[in-house]
Amino acid sequence: MQERLAKPARKVAPLQPETAPRGNCRHEIILGIDPSLRGTGYGIIRVKKPHAEALVFGTIHSPPAWPRSRCLVNTAQVLKDQIQKYHPTVCAIEGLFFAQNLQTALLMGEARGVCLLSAAEAGLDIFEIAARKVKQAMVGFGAAQKLAVAKMVQRLLHLTEAPAADAADALALALTFAQESRSYSLTPLKML
Amino acid sequence: MQERLAKPARKVAPLQPETAPRGNCRHEIILGIDPSLRGTGYGIIRVKKPHAEALVFGTIHSPPAWPRSRCLVNTAQVLKDQIQKYHPTVCAIEGLFFAQNLQTALLMGEARGVCLLSAAEAGLDIFEIAARKVKQAMVGFGAAQKLAVAKMVQRLLHLTEAPAADAADALALALTFAQESRSYSLTPLKML
Repeated sequence: MQERLAKPARKVAPLQPETAPRGNCRHEIILGIDPSLRGTGYGIIRVKKPHAEALVFGTIHSPPAWPRSRCLVNTAQVLKDQIQKYHPTVCAIEGLFFAQNLQTALLMGEARGVCLLSAAEAGLDIFEIAARKVKQAMVGFGAAQKLAVAKMVQRLLHLTEAPAADAADALALALTFAQESRSYSLTPLKML
Repeated sequence: MQERLAKPARKVAPLQPETAPRGNCRHEIILGIDPSLRGTGYGIIRVKKPHAEALVFGTIHSPPAWPRSRCLVNTAQVLKDQIQKYHPTVCAIEGLFFAQNLQTALLMGEARGVCLLSAAEAGLDIFEIAARKVKQAMVGFGAAQKLAVAKMVQRLLHLTEAPAADAADALALALTFAQESRSYSLTPLKML
């Protein structure tokens, strides 16, 4: 893992191709979302040379004492505000995932539905990317640890420190979308 | 079952108690929601004498060809419009349910999250009621068929015909909330 992180090649790889944009690479500002009821991660990047830039990122915290509906309202409000401020044109959201049980899947689904709605109401195209694919794209290893992903996100975006796990996952989603959309992928991203 | 449906007692039972309102019976206009990705049922009732009145009900259809995000936007839009038009002050939504698998639970959760958000953003109190409890309240039998519920909803609201299944379930949720909130229930409703 340390060897992978130390590789300099990825660090300077431009996210925008040298040639004219092709496929769905028309998106310059990308929103990544890692949905969760009380800690949705989000990140907005601008794809540019020599490297992508993080415009904003963070975690939408909702205290445990809040009822579920208030958490959902809070999540939607923060996402709407950030979309309005930074004008992303596309959203990459975490795709198929593992849940411990039906109840957990339902709760995660509720948070996910609210994130999808916030992006869709603002007119963003939405693409689903599997967590495994994001890890593969970021550190070349589908079962990578969260810290390894955060460290690579930090390097790719030239951040002074590694973002918190939820925000790092969201930025990784946005970066993976940028990478995927400049290449002819064998497994095209699923549009929602 | 036919015997139960034929009982006249429930038909004329006022949903509003004779005495002054008590507990959380302050709500006069109640929204019931039965969430689903492509066929969310909704119904708004007004609790009054001699019987509750259905102000509006229906199913929010989203064609199979539509991407998921568009279905969610459509669901949210219809709910917001109806809330704005009829001013319900409380929402009863279907609670714990059975899903075939995690993927189904996730999809149902997405629809549910959007419904919760639409109600919460409009400032409604939200209560979760288990489907079994609704059937018990409507026809006295927790494993009742959908048709039996729809027929009882028709009778309680004095409708000319039985509503479609999704709308009937939503109206049944609203009616159950009205019944529960006028009595001291042993299992209080769960607020979301």
